Amino acid sequence: MPHANHYVIIMAGGIGSRFWPMSRSNFPKQFHDILGRGQSLIQETYNRFATFIPESNIYVVTNESYGQLVQQQLPNLSQDQILLEPVGRNTAPCIAYACYKIKKINPDAVMVVAPADHLIAFEDIFRQNIITGLEACKKENIIMTLGIRPTRPDTGYGYIQYLDPQSHKPFYKVKTFTEKPNLEVAKSFLASGDFVWNSGIFLFSVNTIGSSFNEFLPDMAELFDQLTDKYYSTEEQQSVNAAYITCRNVSIDYGIMEKAKNVFVIPSDFGWSDLGTWGSVYENSEKDEHGNAAHVYKLLSYKSGNNVVAATNNQKVVVIRGLEDFIVVDTENALLICPKKDEQAIREIVADLKNDFGEAYV
Amino acid sequence: MPHANHYVIIMAGGIGSRFWPMSRSNFPKQFHDILGRGQSLIQETYNRFATFIPESNIYVVTNESYGQLVQQQLPNLSQDQILLEPVGRNTAPCIAYACYKIKKINPDAVMVVAPADHLIAFEDIFRQNIITGLEACKKENIIMTLGIRPTRPDTGYGYIQYLDPQSHKPFYKVKTFTEKPNLEVAKSFLASGDFVWNSGIFLFSVNTIGSSFNEFLPDMAELFDQLTDKYYSTEEQQSVNAAYITCRNVSIDYGIMEKAKNVFVIPSDFGWSDLGTWGSVYENSEKDEHGNAAHVYKLLSYKSGNNVVAATNNQKVVVIRGLEDFIVVDTENALLICPKKDEQAIREIVADLKNDFGEAYV
Repeated sequence: MPHANHYVIIMAGGIGSRFWPMSRSNFPKQFHDILGRGQSLIQETYNRFATFIPESNIYVVTNESYGQLVQQQLPNLSQDQILLEPVGRNTAPCIAYACYKIKKINPDAVMVVAPADHLIAFEDIFRQNIITGLEACKKENIIMTLGIRPTRPDTGYGYIQYLDPQSHKPFYKVKTFTEKPNLEVAKSFLASGDFVWNSGIFLFSVNTIGSSFNEFLPDMAELFDQLTDKYYSTEEQQSVNAAYITCRNVSIDYGIMEKAKNVFVIPSDFGWSDLGTWGSVYENSEKDEHGNAAHVYKLLSYKSGNNVVAATNNQKVVVIRGLEDFIVVDTENALLICPKKDEQAIREIVADLKNDFGEAYV
Repeated sequence: MPHANHYVIIMAGGIGSRFWPMSRSNFPKQFHDILGRGQSLIQETYNRFATFIPESNIYVVTNESYGQLVQQQLPNLSQDQILLEPVGRNTAPCIAYACYKIKKINPDAVMVVAPADHLIAFEDIFRQNIITGLEACKKENIIMTLGIRPTRPDTGYGYIQYLDPQSHKPFYKVKTFTEKPNLEVAKSFLASGDFVWNSGIFLFSVNTIGSSFNEFLPDMAELFDQLTDKYYSTEEQQSVNAAYITCRNVSIDYGIMEKAKNVFVIPSDFGWSDLGTWGSVYENSEKDEHGNAAHVYKLLSYKSGNNVVAATNNQKVVVIRGLEDFIVVDTENALLICPKKDEQAIREIVADLKNDFGEAYV
């Protein structure tokens, strides 16, 4: 039974430039069905929550230019549930806006904040973790995070270290948040047994997070608190746009999580991936007998292996020969062929394209 | 001044499967502007001849399914100048059909037979060679061929050996036609100085070639001679279709050239390429500073060199990284990525696609 005080904030403002050329500034990755599962990433995220959170309590924060896309892909959302940022200012303002808005109509709200583009394999475990977290945040003045038990010394994620790992508890007090480590450090994290990956999924009551904003980001707290009169009114957008102009760019991790003393973590194993790069698409795809992950109508592979191949045209045949460990992504007006190991270069490629052509190809 | 007895037969029946995916069975390579020069290959060939051969004397032989394409691309041709084969039977029937047809209206015709898809860099030299050949064929009962002085021991061409190479003559008596040699043999050909590449361009009078058909391919001579009443009539197509059913598959090289004693060759250097493969497109293209040949709107190349990259969409941006010596060809519904050294595998790929999808992608 969905609980009327339970809310979700889906953060969907990213551009996903590491997913170029499929992800474009006017159609970013969260709106694509990158893995060919029948729904876009944001639709999967929405539907995952809609099984146990009232649909009227699901909010999406995105860039104003994606408002129509959100409306098209999630037609059950009312305009009030789609929060439009005139400009991206990282996660802290995004969360502040949503929390102060929701607080206006429900000061007893407890909420989960989650990115739009995560893969979750085991939804039952995920749901149970979320409910555990929401119930805890209802009872206590704490901030909860979901931590993913690491399966490899990944250098692409932040890590969370927690206290008292030998005990058996549903959640643990957080000792430290860490930045992305180098490989050696990541290996030591893995060996120590008290580190989990930071999933970027947080839970708290509006009261608790409001107190944290007051304590650690008082300027931001004031900025969005003073708009309380405007929320759910015809003046909301204009007021929010004005607020964003003066708002600093701060992540919730840096602004609050790393400083607050009341942060807890649920270490979990719900088959999580943040689907951040084409390499992660490769990891999360079925492979053919040569280890190729094909998201095209038909891939013909000769003397080729371990590639990830995708196309937006669902009639496209791709033939590769003598290609190993590559990313091949084809769209109507752009084609990328790049080694998987160089996937970090895609951002640089996008920057070069922007220099050459403006917005036409990015 | 164009000479009323001078004719051209452009052979344009090929499918060009080594140019897949750009060349398709319903739009083969001779109708593409593969090098981006502003005209298709058949248009270039036509226009090259039209500077010195009367346009009413230029005939095209092609498959019936390409009749409309020829008409569209060469609108000056009348229906009588477009000869449609119901099925390909190699070059001998194609030439017999054209010769017996032209003989009906001009028994004094002398003609050049040329493929539709050759590149000629130096048109003045080419034109001079053709005129020399036509004049010689008018005076004597000989078959003339154009031979290309080899610049490398190419194993992709047939060779022609000629007599008396130390003399200085406009043309030489042919000693032998050879098949494509292996590399060692090709090297010895190059060293010997009396071998030239077989360009597949032939010249003769209708009388001379008629005698040769009578002598070496009498069944074919009879087949097309007996249709003389039908040429230039409404019954032509139906009669030709019936003739092709019983007609053997024979090349003019094997059927006549290798056997006739009256074959001569003009060794020449008019910058010839048969543009048979993507490798030859590479050779005939301008390269960027990394040796990439780009036939796309824009190629962004990182740590890549010596590739040939083409796309049918003239707005397409292609980004390659870590790619050396590859063929990359993109069309609306098919993409090929294949090492240049494996270009001969493209025929096998096309056969596999035909097995999988029928005609949809070939």
